Amino acid sequence: MRTQVAIIGAGPAGLLLSRLLERRGIDAVVLESRDRAYCERRQRAGMLEQGTVDVLRACGAADRLDREGLTHHGLELRFGGRGHRIALSELTGGKAVTIYAQTEIVKDLIALAPEGRIRFGAEVVEVDPVTPRVTYRENGRLHTLDCDLIAGCDGFHGVSRAAVRGSTVFEREYPYAWLGVLADVPPSTEELIYCHHERGFALHSLRSPQVSRLYLQVDPTDQPSDWPDERIWAELRTRFATTDGWTLKDGPIREKAVTPMRSFVTEPMRHERLFLAGDAAHIVPPTGAKGLNLAVSDVTALAGAIADGGLDGYSQSRLRQVWRAEHFSYWMTTLLHTDPAADAFARRLQLSHLEYVVSSAAASTTLAENYVGFAYDGR
Amino acid sequence: MRTQVAIIGAGPAGLLLSRLLERRGIDAVVLESRDRAYCERRQRAGMLEQGTVDVLRACGAADRLDREGLTHHGLELRFGGRGHRIALSELTGGKAVTIYAQTEIVKDLIALAPEGRIRFGAEVVEVDPVTPRVTYRENGRLHTLDCDLIAGCDGFHGVSRAAVRGSTVFEREYPYAWLGVLADVPPSTEELIYCHHERGFALHSLRSPQVSRLYLQVDPTDQPSDWPDERIWAELRTRFATTDGWTLKDGPIREKAVTPMRSFVTEPMRHERLFLAGDAAHIVPPTGAKGLNLAVSDVTALAGAIADGGLDGYSQSRLRQVWRAEHFSYWMTTLLHTDPAADAFARRLQLSHLEYVVSSAAASTTLAENYVGFAYDGR
Repeated sequence: MRTQVAIIGAGPAGLLLSRLLERRGIDAVVLESRDRAYCERRQRAGMLEQGTVDVLRACGAADRLDREGLTHHGLELRFGGRGHRIALSELTGGKAVTIYAQTEIVKDLIALAPEGRIRFGAEVVEVDPVTPRVTYRENGRLHTLDCDLIAGCDGFHGVSRAAVRGSTVFEREYPYAWLGVLADVPPSTEELIYCHHERGFALHSLRSPQVSRLYLQVDPTDQPSDWPDERIWAELRTRFATTDGWTLKDGPIREKAVTPMRSFVTEPMRHERLFLAGDAAHIVPPTGAKGLNLAVSDVTALAGAIADGGLDGYSQSRLRQVWRAEHFSYWMTTLLHTDPAADAFARRLQLSHLEYVVSSAAASTTLAENYVGFAYDGR
Repeated sequence: MRTQVAIIGAGPAGLLLSRLLERRGIDAVVLESRDRAYCERRQRAGMLEQGTVDVLRACGAADRLDREGLTHHGLELRFGGRGHRIALSELTGGKAVTIYAQTEIVKDLIALAPEGRIRFGAEVVEVDPVTPRVTYRENGRLHTLDCDLIAGCDGFHGVSRAAVRGSTVFEREYPYAWLGVLADVPPSTEELIYCHHERGFALHSLRSPQVSRLYLQVDPTDQPSDWPDERIWAELRTRFATTDGWTLKDGPIREKAVTPMRSFVTEPMRHERLFLAGDAAHIVPPTGAKGLNLAVSDVTALAGAIADGGLDGYSQSRLRQVWRAEHFSYWMTTLLHTDPAADAFARRLQLSHLEYVVSSAAASTTLAENYVGFAYDGR
């Protein structure tokens, strides 16, 4: 079999790349080892930058997003028992963010794909970046897919990254993890609350008018079983407590999971005719909500480069943006989490930093402009 | 002997406090263990915030400063062989900084002091914050100075700090020091150049149209004798090198000294009737040029509190500003220096951070507004 672009992985990066290429009349095949139901069930991020929404709209994949997405014009930083609103839109010339779960984007993009363009249950077993050619197993038989180029969109644990020779890896682990819960209770807030407490970070997010998404900083060795529901609600109440009597509504917890925090970048994002995009090339801790958005801007750039012949600049220009997101994610993570190893000086610096971020319009703007999406080219 | 305010130390903090009190008709005595010549010779900082210049002007101590000070409306951040101007005044509603050596401020304030108000060669041997009373030795004999309150302006190594009971200390040492040189050569720049290089930080400052002040990040165990003049100039040329052929003029080096880098805060800044100001209460690494300016804002607040009866709020309100300066100084230091222990991830983050600071107006403004002096009350 032969195609122009062999796309490995049917996550949001691979599916969107396929869609963007389709709109430009470029042939592609998406190879995905899992089945469709699995792909449509994966719970992941859900905070979309303005630019991400713009890309989805421009390629006709935003009908449901526009109906169901929750647009946010601000967020709250809470510490010392007080909340401080960061007016995202006012500080960024009107940009906003939209809450719409990644899993819904995946469903929308799968539904839009032409018959046969996505091959579920197709496990890639060899990536040849030079020829270029991809070998995969489908229904127990090996097949080859010859192509002009390969897009590696199969995440951190995929085969694409391993096929990049001579790369340099940059990594950081954090001394904490996130316990994420999905609870059947109306959110206690209209905007996200990013909360710093000496006992650790907490985040109040929203999934819908009836469903809350909540996160707690926990020890990276903790298991979900260490956190019975009542312990979760008690800890959330302690960390979110304010001096003005704000209350957190609780309810049945439907899901709970522990996510490790990691920063990771591989350079370059290209080897011969293999191009990496999304988590295959970089991981950020989730605090800044950059993972999905980076993947979208990777494949947007890659689709443009494939169509316009700018592939030689892909890795370098993407890495500049990737490191911006890496730095911001690190910054926001260390600003808000409690490092168990921090000395008294570091703790005081952190509190002063938080106070400055909410007191200075310039400092608030650095948070806001990165949160809604900072692009060096001014897009 | 009796006075209203016993001031320990004739550095800029003690001398300015004396001047500010004098203008409000409050009696004070300054006790200084060294002789006048020594005090007038100490080489220290020389970058004055807008607010510092305003205070000196308002108390009639800025005649020579206004004639000889060099007003700067911007500075350069240089890295990767390229310079980027931070337009301090444009970004801060017209504020500027002024280069005028601390030692000159000391001379000016000594010259203005009424006869007998400063007692040189008066070594404080005991501070009694409760009575309150200061015991000092002058010409081999012990004397006591009774007062309403004591201002401890005798620096990090002075006796005042040790007299504060039950205080909490916050400290940080840095894995580098500054080699500072004073060279008889016209500056190669009109504005300060803060330079990051993988070999370490370098700073090109100015003392006068004929004298340059230059600094190199060096190992904290280095001695001035490890740095012969030719090695200094070679290293400065390497770190300041640009891709556009900028050249560094060299010349005879008149002085060289190694300064350790340290952050230090003691809380509270008061014990009974003893009030700390300046380096007696806090030390910052020199990168952000905040040490002298913090001392000036301390004694400005202290003089106001003495006159207006607001002494109970002194420590708490000052510490909020002190931690702002501590955080900024730490931030600017770690932004620009090369940490020998940094891993590859940290190095990349640093370069992305630098690129962001010069690419985003908001990020440039956070540097500028802190550099010219950020005050929570909006002064």
